Amino acid sequence: MIIHVVTLFPEFFREALACGLMGKAMESGLVAFDFINPRDFAADRHHTVDDRPYGGGPGMVMMLGPLCAALDAIDTPGPLLFLTPGGRPFDQEAARTLAQAPHLTILCGRYEGIDARLGDLYPLRPVSVGDFVINGGEAAALCVIEAVARLVPGFMGKFESADEESFSSGLLEYPQYTRPEVFADIPVPDILLSGDHARIAAWRREQSLAATLAVRPELLPEAGLTARDVEYLREKKGPGLGRNLYVALLHGPVLNRQGKTGTTSLTNLDVHDIARVSRSYGLGGYFVATPLDDQRALAEKLVSHWTHGPGAASNPDRSAAMSLVRVRRDLGEVTDEITRERGVAPFVAATSARAEAKDVFTGFARLRELLGERPVLLVLGTGSGLAPEVTCLADGFLPPIRPFDAYNHLSVRSAAAILADRLLGDVG
Amino acid sequence: MIIHVVTLFPEFFREALACGLMGKAMESGLVAFDFINPRDFAADRHHTVDDRPYGGGPGMVMMLGPLCAALDAIDTPGPLLFLTPGGRPFDQEAARTLAQAPHLTILCGRYEGIDARLGDLYPLRPVSVGDFVINGGEAAALCVIEAVARLVPGFMGKFESADEESFSSGLLEYPQYTRPEVFADIPVPDILLSGDHARIAAWRREQSLAATLAVRPELLPEAGLTARDVEYLREKKGPGLGRNLYVALLHGPVLNRQGKTGTTSLTNLDVHDIARVSRSYGLGGYFVATPLDDQRALAEKLVSHWTHGPGAASNPDRSAAMSLVRVRRDLGEVTDEITRERGVAPFVAATSARAEAKDVFTGFARLRELLGERPVLLVLGTGSGLAPEVTCLADGFLPPIRPFDAYNHLSVRSAAAILADRLLGDVG
Repeated sequence: MIIHVVTLFPEFFREALACGLMGKAMESGLVAFDFINPRDFAADRHHTVDDRPYGGGPGMVMMLGPLCAALDAIDTPGPLLFLTPGGRPFDQEAARTLAQAPHLTILCGRYEGIDARLGDLYPLRPVSVGDFVINGGEAAALCVIEAVARLVPGFMGKFESADEESFSSGLLEYPQYTRPEVFADIPVPDILLSGDHARIAAWRREQSLAATLAVRPELLPEAGLTARDVEYLREKKGPGLGRNLYVALLHGPVLNRQGKTGTTSLTNLDVHDIARVSRSYGLGGYFVATPLDDQRALAEKLVSHWTHGPGAASNPDRSAAMSLVRVRRDLGEVTDEITRERGVAPFVAATSARAEAKDVFTGFARLRELLGERPVLLVLGTGSGLAPEVTCLADGFLPPIRPFDAYNHLSVRSAAAILADRLLGDVG
Repeated sequence: MIIHVVTLFPEFFREALACGLMGKAMESGLVAFDFINPRDFAADRHHTVDDRPYGGGPGMVMMLGPLCAALDAIDTPGPLLFLTPGGRPFDQEAARTLAQAPHLTILCGRYEGIDARLGDLYPLRPVSVGDFVINGGEAAALCVIEAVARLVPGFMGKFESADEESFSSGLLEYPQYTRPEVFADIPVPDILLSGDHARIAAWRREQSLAATLAVRPELLPEAGLTARDVEYLREKKGPGLGRNLYVALLHGPVLNRQGKTGTTSLTNLDVHDIARVSRSYGLGGYFVATPLDDQRALAEKLVSHWTHGPGAASNPDRSAAMSLVRVRRDLGEVTDEITRERGVAPFVAATSARAEAKDVFTGFARLRELLGERPVLLVLGTGSGLAPEVTCLADGFLPPIRPFDAYNHLSVRSAAAILADRLLGDVG
């Protein structure tokens, strides 16, 4: 495989690529590098490669002339990667595909970036190695080069493995141990000394699952789990962040379709559906709030039917869900109760289907962080949404669901399900 | 700032760190590096630093002795990062925090990893730069070093900016242009030559939004958008992947709570809620299927009330949602209709709340890929789920929602909302 690297700093790579297995692969001819410096193609005697951006702003931009001449100097470029934080994330799957090609060209940006017209002239594939900013594409290019080159057949020695590692299985790696058997009073896990290969393989699989659950739970749903894996994770998981999440469904004060403040009546399936979501996601509690006495009595009767009446015996699953429901008068009662119960006031997050709010939204990532620290109360409005009398009491607003579509009319039941899933996913 | 790097290959870094601004920062004393090679602390005359893993398996594992001695040789280590694909993802936020510390230590693994007991002995912070595997931590360490060091005050020249870049705003960068004004017949966008700074700033913001929408839409909900940004994205977005997604809600053949195959009756709110989800997520269609003639007549009457009857006038939003509903007899009718309409058979994805299935699940990521290529039909069962007569016709099974919890009893309405959101999110 020949890797062409277009860079203002060829010397960045020289020693780095000479190390370890990469150095051996170069010696054996398995991988070869070809460095092309746009500076060698600059038209003026100062070898200028950058200029100030049109439209102003800090920094310098790489000029088209030297870049185009550098790319044109490559006879067989193969796939043409351009390293930029604005690119598609580079991953093991991309490495596998690129390792099949006999040629690969990697363009390293520097300064504030390159003249964007380069993308109109060459089939650039912008890729990013991570959500951080570095001084140029060179360090990222080293990562891509290593990830790709080590998958070229023959690169890894016969005792090493390119495959049995993180992301090959979709799970993080299991822990490794080597001699001595006891170090600083810490022994190697017994099972690794047992010689029982099947049990060792099972233990390592569980360790991989546990590591992924702890550090990268979002990888689990895509990891091709077996039924046995799922069972292990169920035992291992324990209560998630959900125990800090509470939901309140307000029937007043809410807006009607004319935008006036009022009270809505109870909807049977709102109570059921959101209770089932609350139980499935392990929530701390689900409050149904209405200022009307007869509506509260009705709600209590409904809940009681399923928790203590005939429904409890006929459907224990539904009973488990409905037992999370607490019927209360208003938001104040709810927040007071959570505060008493938890010893700290909840962060009150209001929800709205409208994106016109002047407020800065509290994003889902931020709310997940908050869930790790304190109780969070998600306030949902019936009717046409929460009235200003309620929203002014909120500590933050969640962004609307599907804000970039003109149509945005989910039922409050659907919204509750989606919000719980966005905050907690399969694992939280 | 002093960065201590524990590595078997100090020479990997030498030339790379001498380049460009990093070289200048070292010359000015802003950043200093201290390389510690575990091999220098090896106890035997072969300078051995690795050994075979307990429990077998390919590759070699770095031994504790030399690693501990190397770490102990650092007087003031500061935060202690360990680069491994099994670590938490490194991002700009982490870089900002680390740039505050006067010392930073980075441990580079090699081979199959390090003896895991090192984490019991030192406060290692495992971090990963991306979901790919490289030969050792060195190339990743270069990325971390650059990302952190360039945020040290004084690192960037006064004409450069460490801040106005990707991930500082939560959006990808806008395109840059420099001289010449026309290159290969392609002109610089007029607006950049206008000298109107406010309009240029607005245009660049829109370009950032458009780039993020195209390449990393998942960043948008967290990006602190203004109402104006949302309006721009709404116009820009156009139809998403959702147009390739169809939902079918089957009332038969489905299982009852005793596990027998049968038929369920129509639930009014199933039709409404899933229609509203379908419209909000821009789905291709929503099929309500029941083999019973009178139930189909009932469903048609319900839909007609909202699309052509009194409901249409009183609630145009609901009418828009209900107009997506098509009442059909069975799954065969549904797949035939999609095939006729689209000229290609849909990928039929069955859903189940149970994780015991022997089938390998089609993950959400895979189904999103499929949505980019062809129509996909999501089949949801009423009652206690789809009967085997139906599931045997499926091309794939979606993983259950919340598979790692013992309780998993969402309403089909909630499941439909969550599945649409997992597949399409805010933007798809």
